[in-house]
Amino acid sequence: MAGNFQKALKLRAALRHLHLHSSLSSPATARHVSAAHSRPFLTVSSGRSAASCRKLHAGTDELKPSPAAPPERRPFSRITPEDLAFFREILPRGTITDPDLLESSNVDWLKSVRGYGEVLLRPQTTEEVSQILQYCNSRNLAVNPQGGNTGLVGGSVPVYDEIILSTALMNNILTFDSISGILTCQAGCVLENLSLYLEEKDFIMPLDLGAKGSCQIGGNVATNAGGLRLLRYGSLHGTVLGLEVVLADGRVLDCLATLRKDNTGYDLKQLFIGSEGTLGVITAVSILCPRKPKSVNVVFLGCETFEQLLKTFQLCRGMLGEILSAFEFLDSECMRLLNTHLKLANPISDCPFYVVIETSGSDAAHDGEKLHNFLEEAMTSSLVTDGTVATEDSKIKALWSMRERVTEALTHDGFTYKYDISLPLERLYQLVTDMRAHLGQRAKSVVGYGHVGDGNLHLNITSPAKDPALLAAIEPFVYEWTAGCQGSISAEHGLGLKKRNYIYYSKPSQAVALMRDFKTLLDPKGILNPYKTLPDHLKGL
Amino acid sequence: MAGNFQKALKLRAALRHLHLHSSLSSPATARHVSAAHSRPFLTVSSGRSAASCRKLHAGTDELKPSPAAPPERRPFSRITPEDLAFFREILPRGTITDPDLLESSNVDWLKSVRGYGEVLLRPQTTEEVSQILQYCNSRNLAVNPQGGNTGLVGGSVPVYDEIILSTALMNNILTFDSISGILTCQAGCVLENLSLYLEEKDFIMPLDLGAKGSCQIGGNVATNAGGLRLLRYGSLHGTVLGLEVVLADGRVLDCLATLRKDNTGYDLKQLFIGSEGTLGVITAVSILCPRKPKSVNVVFLGCETFEQLLKTFQLCRGMLGEILSAFEFLDSECMRLLNTHLKLANPISDCPFYVVIETSGSDAAHDGEKLHNFLEEAMTSSLVTDGTVATEDSKIKALWSMRERVTEALTHDGFTYKYDISLPLERLYQLVTDMRAHLGQRAKSVVGYGHVGDGNLHLNITSPAKDPALLAAIEPFVYEWTAGCQGSISAEHGLGLKKRNYIYYSKPSQAVALMRDFKTLLDPKGILNPYKTLPDHLKGL
Repeated sequence: MAGNFQKALKLRAALRHLHLHSSLSSPATARHVSAAHSRPFLTVSSGRSAASCRKLHAGTDELKPSPAAPPERRPFSRITPEDLAFFREILPRGTITDPDLLESSNVDWLKSVRGYGEVLLRPQTTEEVSQILQYCNSRNLAVNPQGGNTGLVGGSVPVYDEIILSTALMNNILTFDSISGILTCQAGCVLENLSLYLEEKDFIMPLDLGAKGSCQIGGNVATNAGGLRLLRYGSLHGTVLGLEVVLADGRVLDCLATLRKDNTGYDLKQLFIGSEGTLGVITAVSILCPRKPKSVNVVFLGCETFEQLLKTFQLCRGMLGEILSAFEFLDSECMRLLNTHLKLANPISDCPFYVVIETSGSDAAHDGEKLHNFLEEAMTSSLVTDGTVATEDSKIKALWSMRERVTEALTHDGFTYKYDISLPLERLYQLVTDMRAHLGQRAKSVVGYGHVGDGNLHLNITSPAKDPALLAAIEPFVYEWTAGCQGSISAEHGLGLKKRNYIYYSKPSQAVALMRDFKTLLDPKGILNPYKTLPDHLKGL
Repeated sequence: MAGNFQKALKLRAALRHLHLHSSLSSPATARHVSAAHSRPFLTVSSGRSAASCRKLHAGTDELKPSPAAPPERRPFSRITPEDLAFFREILPRGTITDPDLLESSNVDWLKSVRGYGEVLLRPQTTEEVSQILQYCNSRNLAVNPQGGNTGLVGGSVPVYDEIILSTALMNNILTFDSISGILTCQAGCVLENLSLYLEEKDFIMPLDLGAKGSCQIGGNVATNAGGLRLLRYGSLHGTVLGLEVVLADGRVLDCLATLRKDNTGYDLKQLFIGSEGTLGVITAVSILCPRKPKSVNVVFLGCETFEQLLKTFQLCRGMLGEILSAFEFLDSECMRLLNTHLKLANPISDCPFYVVIETSGSDAAHDGEKLHNFLEEAMTSSLVTDGTVATEDSKIKALWSMRERVTEALTHDGFTYKYDISLPLERLYQLVTDMRAHLGQRAKSVVGYGHVGDGNLHLNITSPAKDPALLAAIEPFVYEWTAGCQGSISAEHGLGLKKRNYIYYSKPSQAVALMRDFKTLLDPKGILNPYKTLPDHLKGL
């Protein structure tokens, strides 16, 4: 019996893997996997989704399932023709079942995970979202809320046949108050569009991301996006003033206040910020926007050691003070990849570490003087060995690209294992050094870059191809190392599908149990973004 | 039957009033009220608490109970000698039952409400708090968590015989990281002590309040305190990085992260910020502290109209930009009270409106120049009619006192009805004007002051003595007016006991229902700070 049980477990694990790593399976096998998990898909899926996901992969190829692999499909209902008829009644044009049109909503931006959603719904109003969720909840149909689908942890696409509920057509700006700087808009507004709208009014969004051209403000809030302006303007928990959220059963929770201060009871909206669509669907956002700075400077510096880099950060915070708006870093390995793969030339002499500092202020002369004084002090005290300053837009962009295009350079270097870690500042780079020593020749490149000002390291490891042995050497090493420093195993990317089971490295079991309680309270049937954020099993309870 | 029922209701209402407004009742009557609500108090209370509350009052004197009056005592257990023995075992020195020592914990800072707590517990560790709550929960004993007892809405003292759980002895600073500026401390640390500690290290707390000499950081977080630095450093939802909270059943929730970024699951700590001790007892806090500014300037200006004051604010945000750290206002009525009652002389010529602007920056010369340019522009464009600047500490303090001592001046003017309102900026002063017209000769003074930068008006109305007719003219007028502008009826003071039943003016019923759900989830027996924050009855459900 025990032997059979083991065998069954192995088989199930293998099947799960085939689902995620269908690059290894023929279309037929992939279809078989779907069927093995549950009843056959509706004809709307036609099986081609499985065929088209050949190149998608994540985790290891071993038989033992990675904690990142999806669990079994939960017993949600299957979509029936009657369900489709209902959706078409609410959204005559916004009910999409054409597999070609569904494709981009089923695959994540990294092309690392894919789902098998058969229906994509594109409502335009909160009322429509409410009707859809009320219906899905009553029918026990699972729903995958989707914004710009730019997430990096597999949180934004279905795992199985969840209905994809896209906010893309909810893209109206509702109000903007130029006295208070408070913007109210629907959740589907693209971040860059909001930025352009505000710039004309002499304001900016309090957040900025590489994905700004596609990501939506609702998704930003749902994932508590960090990005490049957090150092200056703080997190969304501080800048988001109000949310409208549709709960799993269709109830509309109107917390769309446009006030800087409101102490009338619990701040309910906070719970939805960073909940990755598992507690409710954000349909509108109000957010406090800062004035557009009149003067922006960017400096690119080189440091001999990470210790000197940290001292430079300290000096910079003291001397640039209120005009400091970014302090980012990359290591010499990142520079090598930029040179090799993107032909980007190092704007200064070669150094072990590089820093991008941005200032934003209201007086160009003052900002320039502060920057000059800081640079003089940094050079005199030998904290930095070389550097260059940009005040013109084109040169500013060129310097920023040294930091922003590291991700792109990595994709040319090989298969990339990506980690997004929060650590105490003084330990930030040690993880890269230790990982490099730990992996030795097994990795092609081990690089570190990120947001020094926020204590946020992006650790990336490449290999010529996917390499289960390498992955086994990286994980759980990276998570254990991080937990040992009371760090966070996901600083800004969230948990999604891929990291849900690693949650205990950063959260105690009491906290995870309470998360589960909130989930059960707000979404008793668990229809909202299932298999995400929460671990498959509660620990120690 | 109906007649008798009405009579009983009236009697009950009258008794409730006597409890709150015992200034009108003899000590004997007050004792009778306690007894009428429940079984007699333990001998430890000896009835003197009722006797000593003669001067305490709030709400109206009518028979119809004010929504601010407390509801009937809920059926919690009474403290027994066995309970006391248990507490004394855990806290041999921290179990206080002497009525003299309990007095100051039973009466709020405004002396407007009082409770009849018979036991004051002063734990020193989280483990002790956990043991106490686990016990109280199992015994169904109600608990009133208490920080510095400086709240203004009756949230910080017991209503009946709740056990007072004080964090006063939990006053250790745990860690401070001078690179990141992250402070971790126990909840009972007094705000001013933390400020003094940080100033030596060249940092400041991100919040500052008039009550800083007594208020505790745990209480600040539990009430989501705003104060004078919110304009610059944002709310506690952004600056608090971690909390340790003991739940009603004694479970310790460790969310005491010291990271700027952590996206591993729901941000549970947020729910406790501003929950006024009704969801858990905050035992430790980690908070992000800004660098101490090197240069501080204060300007006192006069404006002819509130419209010009708002234009001055706009100009100031543009020209002072990142160094603006406060923009406060008071009206000429406030100035009259400062002159009359505190003999404070107007530092400039008489104007309808006065503004206090503070700048904080890293370069005195730059800050001075920005300020000079702003003032020149404001004078040239006739936005301000007079003004004075301070750069020295003593003069800065003197100018600030014109704003900070308004509250004190009001106490000398008579009985004060206080309102703490958030409004859209362009409507901020209209409420004062409308209220003045609405009340006519019935009020002695109607004054407005507050935090323009945060859209937060403090509206205060005085009369020679408590005046039920005046109160009836003010309320619900003030709340309806505020609700009509989508304002908040409590910008920073919270709801506590006094404002709990006004919640629907600022929160929709779905949100209040969800608050109740969270309360039930986290504190099923309702032992934590009962009668506070949540309304007595749910509406429309």
